[in-house]
Amino acid sequence: MNKIHIIGLGLLGGSFGLGARRKFPELKVTGQDISSDNLRDAQTLGIITEAKEQADEDTDIVILATPADSLGDLLVQTLDQIGPETLVIDLGSTKSKLCQKVTNHPKRKQYLAGHPIAGTEYSGPKAAFADLLDRKVMILCEMEKTDLHLKEKAYQLFEALNLKLRFMDPEEHDRHLAFVSHLSHVSSFMLGKTVMQKMADDKNIFDMAGSGFASTVRLAKSSPAMWAPILTENKDNILAALDGYISNLQDIRGKIAEGDSDSLYQDMAEINKIRDILDLGK
Amino acid sequence: MNKIHIIGLGLLGGSFGLGARRKFPELKVTGQDISSDNLRDAQTLGIITEAKEQADEDTDIVILATPADSLGDLLVQTLDQIGPETLVIDLGSTKSKLCQKVTNHPKRKQYLAGHPIAGTEYSGPKAAFADLLDRKVMILCEMEKTDLHLKEKAYQLFEALNLKLRFMDPEEHDRHLAFVSHLSHVSSFMLGKTVMQKMADDKNIFDMAGSGFASTVRLAKSSPAMWAPILTENKDNILAALDGYISNLQDIRGKIAEGDSDSLYQDMAEINKIRDILDLGK
Repeated sequence: MNKIHIIGLGLLGGSFGLGARRKFPELKVTGQDISSDNLRDAQTLGIITEAKEQADEDTDIVILATPADSLGDLLVQTLDQIGPETLVIDLGSTKSKLCQKVTNHPKRKQYLAGHPIAGTEYSGPKAAFADLLDRKVMILCEMEKTDLHLKEKAYQLFEALNLKLRFMDPEEHDRHLAFVSHLSHVSSFMLGKTVMQKMADDKNIFDMAGSGFASTVRLAKSSPAMWAPILTENKDNILAALDGYISNLQDIRGKIAEGDSDSLYQDMAEINKIRDILDLGK
Repeated sequence: MNKIHIIGLGLLGGSFGLGARRKFPELKVTGQDISSDNLRDAQTLGIITEAKEQADEDTDIVILATPADSLGDLLVQTLDQIGPETLVIDLGSTKSKLCQKVTNHPKRKQYLAGHPIAGTEYSGPKAAFADLLDRKVMILCEMEKTDLHLKEKAYQLFEALNLKLRFMDPEEHDRHLAFVSHLSHVSSFMLGKTVMQKMADDKNIFDMAGSGFASTVRLAKSSPAMWAPILTENKDNILAALDGYISNLQDIRGKIAEGDSDSLYQDMAEINKIRDILDLGK
């Protein structure tokens, strides 16, 4: 592997660049970003070795790391433009629409649909760091549609970054992620909103907030440019997750209103089992 | 200060004992717990120096650290029993009912209503540690009703534990805490429940959960013995917070269903201001 090109030099694209360069010191990493500030920062921070407006003909891998709603058109344009030995990987948080969009593209074999389960509540190239992807899960979809030879390049990069690979179909991915990622973001944003509305009356309310509040509201700091598109791109699955969540909240509301301590206790004890499940995932 | 007595030797009572003993090596710390396992662990771990079924006559401070629904009767019993130079402090997460209950007690001046904003998702004496209270906020209510001389003992203990004192009336406390603590726990428990229900269909869903999910669902590991009583004791305030939260969730549900990206973006950008507010609290 000699050359990769990254489109979108934010937290995720930037961390891919830093991680790859640390592992392959000779690697040329070209890149582009719609924001000239991000592009300049990416050069200053050593995320890329050179700014380029598109991938060179001899690029091994093009990484697409832009917001979810921009990836469809960008993927088609990039496939249209690249040379015959180049693989395109996207890192988007939703996969179904994207895979559908290029299903009949003449260069479909040069595309690999990926989603690394990695991020923080911060964004932009300054938030990027080389270890972000270390030991994280990388979900790959429709592997069978990607050229075998090109996939080997991808594996080489993923192994260098210490990613743990998982395989599933795009619909399954989007259904699962709505529950274990997208719903968490919606719940956290709305929790932040609810407390901020209350704060309009009581200025000092945050002074009393402990680590529990900070933990549940952390994701409310996340980037709207990334998250607004995810919510609309994965609409149906997120609505299903959200409806289940609202229904559970209304159920516990009823038990609190009735003062039904025993039932609240039983519910919480049952939900406590999430400890073992979360620990299993480690 | 020579002697304190702790009733309820879990995470909070245990950490008070460990913190106080570290600062005052000569201090006698007696204690009791309804669970014989907890009592034995508290002795083994050095939380208490001696098990006692009630506070000695010459005890300086009795600390009540049991679940919220048990504190009312326990407070009355303890006030009835203690000597004339003893102060009783409770550490409960709700304050209004408790303050009302003893408002006409002949020994009201020997009581101080407190709530340290400190805890973890773990419980019991084995979860206790001496630094839990270090630099945490301690809310005190109805200070004017406590004897001045006895308050000095409390200040000495709080200063030793490095607690930051805040003062407010019990109703204000309960109203605020519903938003910045109790609501977070309800939202986290219900998030855990929603995803566990989904998991009944898709076994491997947690494999895809990242740090964001872990953060929002952390409080779902919390103790039902502690939290079921809080939810019923502070019922009215929690219902108000929960209604605001459900209403916000229904509002964002509508925007997602409409695919209204612009409005979602604007909402999230506004909620992002919670960054500055949370940082201010540090």
